[in-house]
Amino acid sequence: MAPSHILTAFDEELKYLQRRISEMGGLAEEMVSESVEALVNTDSALAQKVISDDLVLDEAEREIGDKAVVIIARRQPVASDLREIMGAIRIAADLERVGDMAKNTAKRVISVQGTGVPRKLAHGIEHLSELALLQLKEVLDAYNSRQADKANSIRERDEEIDAIYTSLFRELLTYMMEDPRNITTCTHLLFCAKNIERIGDHATNIAEMIYYIATGAQPQGERPKDDNTAAVGSSDT
Amino acid sequence: MAPSHILTAFDEELKYLQRRISEMGGLAEEMVSESVEALVNTDSALAQKVISDDLVLDEAEREIGDKAVVIIARRQPVASDLREIMGAIRIAADLERVGDMAKNTAKRVISVQGTGVPRKLAHGIEHLSELALLQLKEVLDAYNSRQADKANSIRERDEEIDAIYTSLFRELLTYMMEDPRNITTCTHLLFCAKNIERIGDHATNIAEMIYYIATGAQPQGERPKDDNTAAVGSSDT
Repeated sequence: MAPSHILTAFDEELKYLQRRISEMGGLAEEMVSESVEALVNTDSALAQKVISDDLVLDEAEREIGDKAVVIIARRQPVASDLREIMGAIRIAADLERVGDMAKNTAKRVISVQGTGVPRKLAHGIEHLSELALLQLKEVLDAYNSRQADKANSIRERDEEIDAIYTSLFRELLTYMMEDPRNITTCTHLLFCAKNIERIGDHATNIAEMIYYIATGAQPQGERPKDDNTAAVGSSDT
Repeated sequence: MAPSHILTAFDEELKYLQRRISEMGGLAEEMVSESVEALVNTDSALAQKVISDDLVLDEAEREIGDKAVVIIARRQPVASDLREIMGAIRIAADLERVGDMAKNTAKRVISVQGTGVPRKLAHGIEHLSELALLQLKEVLDAYNSRQADKANSIRERDEEIDAIYTSLFRELLTYMMEDPRNITTCTHLLFCAKNIERIGDHATNIAEMIYYIATGAQPQGERPKDDNTAAVGSSDT
């Protein structure tokens, strides 16, 4: 058994990783929310803020990764301590990708400024992002409270997001067919919707990681990682 | 110093990870190539094969991750050995995502069967995938030969893929504007092109990991991870 001051220092290091993950999560949530706000209001200043914030998130991921490797080398953890550190690396990577999704949406703001975003489509995108943000928030809460069971139920929730995304996808196609002048804007909105849908996938990844940290096992069952729009249009044949 | 048979067993474990990564890489390359072939020939049997292969790739990633954690716990590696293992986990995750991209393209084959893929667009998608596959092949070679310098130059190559993707993006928009009956098919092709473009991003990630394994540092300079199509259309305003 190592002396308790060593354990305490190690505990502090684990807590540091956990705190940094929570900070990353908070920033990622803010970026997603602001990117959608920037999009529906075609607010390019807010979009620019999201793009800048992504650099902070990238740097945080790098720092967590470097720190984690130093902790493993120094403390040589096993079992749940090791899983905790490995999980932190993975979760940081997913949060970094969530930031990328928000940045990509923000970058499209300039392309839709000419036409603006039709009110009905804006509403659909906002609804999709609210669900994705709720999922992200719940999964970050589950990480902080170490509730693996809660994380596993979040994973199943992803289907709701996919259903809304599929309906939005069809609606965007309809807008494009009605008026070719909508095509460029709607194409960008398609990618924005896809970005938001993928945030749900990253939340699902994080939920799986929380389950892994707690139990050492991967959750059972097929994971709902792909969207359902791939088959849209096949009934037209 | 540990007895040499222990070192040998550890070396064997590292080599096992490396071999499994190479196998994953080979399968991922095959899936990308076949998904594009299935798309341009609207070959749904081949598309189904790609979708099935993705399960094998997912399982390989899980196995590498589990094995890596066992090795860390048992051998308590530091410095380059630890980076080797951490790198293997990350590279496996990127290759798994490459498989997801191929699967998503394969899933869209059924949606374009009604209209088929116009020859000129098919040619553009094939060209894009050839470049992405070349980049993936080079990065896997660099991983096997541990040539960090080579990996760093691959990273810069990504710009070529982005340029072709942007040109294809514009061409797809043009097709949609010319005839609304092209909209559904072209939307799916847009996502397929985006999938292929993202394979280049994953190759870039892997190149960065190879550099990290060899040097312990992240490569310097802005990484070209986002595409340039976000601003397409902004000049129309």
